[in-house]
Amino acid sequence: MTAPLAVSLGDPAGVGPELIAETWARRAGERLHPFFVCGGASVLREAAALRGIALDLELIENPGEARAAFARALPVLGGGDGAYRPGFPDDPGARLALASLEAAAALTHAGAAAGLVTGPIAKAALAAVGFAFPGQTEFVAHVCGVAAEDAVMMLAGPSLRTVPLTVHIALAEVPARLSAELIVRRARIVAAGLQRDFGIAAPRLAICGLNPHAGENGRMGREEIEIIAPAIAALRAAGIDATGPHPADTLFAPRLRATYDVAIAMYHDQALVPIKALDFDQGVNVTLGLPIVRTSPDHGTAFGIAGTGTADPGAMIAAIRMAGEMAARRAASD
Amino acid sequence: MTAPLAVSLGDPAGVGPELIAETWARRAGERLHPFFVCGGASVLREAAALRGIALDLELIENPGEARAAFARALPVLGGGDGAYRPGFPDDPGARLALASLEAAAALTHAGAAAGLVTGPIAKAALAAVGFAFPGQTEFVAHVCGVAAEDAVMMLAGPSLRTVPLTVHIALAEVPARLSAELIVRRARIVAAGLQRDFGIAAPRLAICGLNPHAGENGRMGREEIEIIAPAIAALRAAGIDATGPHPADTLFAPRLRATYDVAIAMYHDQALVPIKALDFDQGVNVTLGLPIVRTSPDHGTAFGIAGTGTADPGAMIAAIRMAGEMAARRAASD
Repeated sequence: MTAPLAVSLGDPAGVGPELIAETWARRAGERLHPFFVCGGASVLREAAALRGIALDLELIENPGEARAAFARALPVLGGGDGAYRPGFPDDPGARLALASLEAAAALTHAGAAAGLVTGPIAKAALAAVGFAFPGQTEFVAHVCGVAAEDAVMMLAGPSLRTVPLTVHIALAEVPARLSAELIVRRARIVAAGLQRDFGIAAPRLAICGLNPHAGENGRMGREEIEIIAPAIAALRAAGIDATGPHPADTLFAPRLRATYDVAIAMYHDQALVPIKALDFDQGVNVTLGLPIVRTSPDHGTAFGIAGTGTADPGAMIAAIRMAGEMAARRAASD
Repeated sequence: MTAPLAVSLGDPAGVGPELIAETWARRAGERLHPFFVCGGASVLREAAALRGIALDLELIENPGEARAAFARALPVLGGGDGAYRPGFPDDPGARLALASLEAAAALTHAGAAAGLVTGPIAKAALAAVGFAFPGQTEFVAHVCGVAAEDAVMMLAGPSLRTVPLTVHIALAEVPARLSAELIVRRARIVAAGLQRDFGIAAPRLAICGLNPHAGENGRMGREEIEIIAPAIAALRAAGIDATGPHPADTLFAPRLRATYDVAIAMYHDQALVPIKALDFDQGVNVTLGLPIVRTSPDHGTAFGIAGTGTADPGAMIAAIRMAGEMAARRAASD
């Protein structure tokens, strides 16, 4: 029997706790894999009450109890807790978020949980209490003993999957950061992840160009000719169904979306603009290349609306559902 | 009474002629402003026949005859014509496309037509027969005596309007090309165009950042601080409702789209990715800053599907409808 999922609370002043509670309340209709939360029992209870959710909560002592408890209550593992002050992040809250993340990641890496779903944190708040990683993804990679550059972020929604090859760097630095080696290395991780975790036997990878119209044969930039096309050739030589370089502007139109399983983008906004335009409240951030399953809702803490009952639970539900499906596929193939 | 619209044929080997014929056939249901085509009578006739459209065609001698003819037939002005060979562009076809464009632009600039709608051309094919402009927009600006940099391309669809501030240059050249002066100059043209031609009394302009998350206060690029924010301040000082710099990845999500009338993007794909993802078959390319009304369907010649009957007429219909609405607004305010 597959283990439950471990869910980290996220920043207790953000929308994480209320969305976790809301997701638990919808567990039957959404047919979700059982999950437990690491810590934050009273935060979850108060967030649920403010949102008007009838939440039963059950403290568990080990992940193995979560499955049985899940039908009747939201299982919470561990006694870390704090005050619920939505919209007012502070250091104790950041420490609670960090402890929850650390516990959930460790339990998943140890095999006690079948997958990790991380609630939204505020990077600056975590950094203020000593968190030394740029984001949760790098931390999780570290826990798993994987180099940060091999933990590949994929955004997945109902309309589209996209992978940005470069992420949080200035746009001016993007061209110099690209190399055929980078593209090949990450694209292979993506292809393997789609096979293992998404059940796609021969994933179709559409590789974006960098320049307008993919450079028009070198008239507007030569990265397509010198970097991207050679990478695609190497991927194809390795048996991967990679195509491109595709002009990015048309690649996300409906007819073209039907021709690939994932679009590999060269920079942050090339990947995130289309998925947020199309799948805003349902986008899941998946980390490929890890020994564990890890997903996250593709939104932030949304401090501004936390506690108001207006935050959309779609992405949290989708992140938990996707992690459950990925875990089930891994369990079936083991 | 408002004059008719002048429509240029586009490349006769592309989808332009069949889509013009299809649009005429739908004139009643779509409640379109009367239009005429410059030349290409037999091309239009054959393209319509291949698409299975019952097309009546009427040669007219001056634009003034178009309105009366339009109800019963597609009015064609001028004897320029050629063979219809869909999917096989050649020099005679390019010359026909160019002659049609020149005539339609000249008639509109002279006031004999209330607006210009240009069919899709292939830039390389036109260049091969001596066309010295980068694209139709620059040519139309030249005919109107407007500097090319003051003819501003806006993409407009049912979901979104976007303006790319830089267009057909390599991505690596974008940061150096941006300046506060450029942003202010073009944004003022956009604001004036939305007032005059779209009936928006106080247009809301959302200005994109260049970098991921609009740079996060300079952590990923300083263009937002040094260039874009000062431009926004100058626009606001001039009484224009400009906001930003906004992170581009979230700006095109549904809730945010409702907060502005146009998004001003810093580069080609930042504007074109979201509009093509959302409004692919209905996107209209509008040129603002001209003394005349000018629109175009936001797609190319699509030589690969010309003559197969599969090209979607949505963008051509939308371009002609929008030109008619813009022309009516100008007529009403004159």
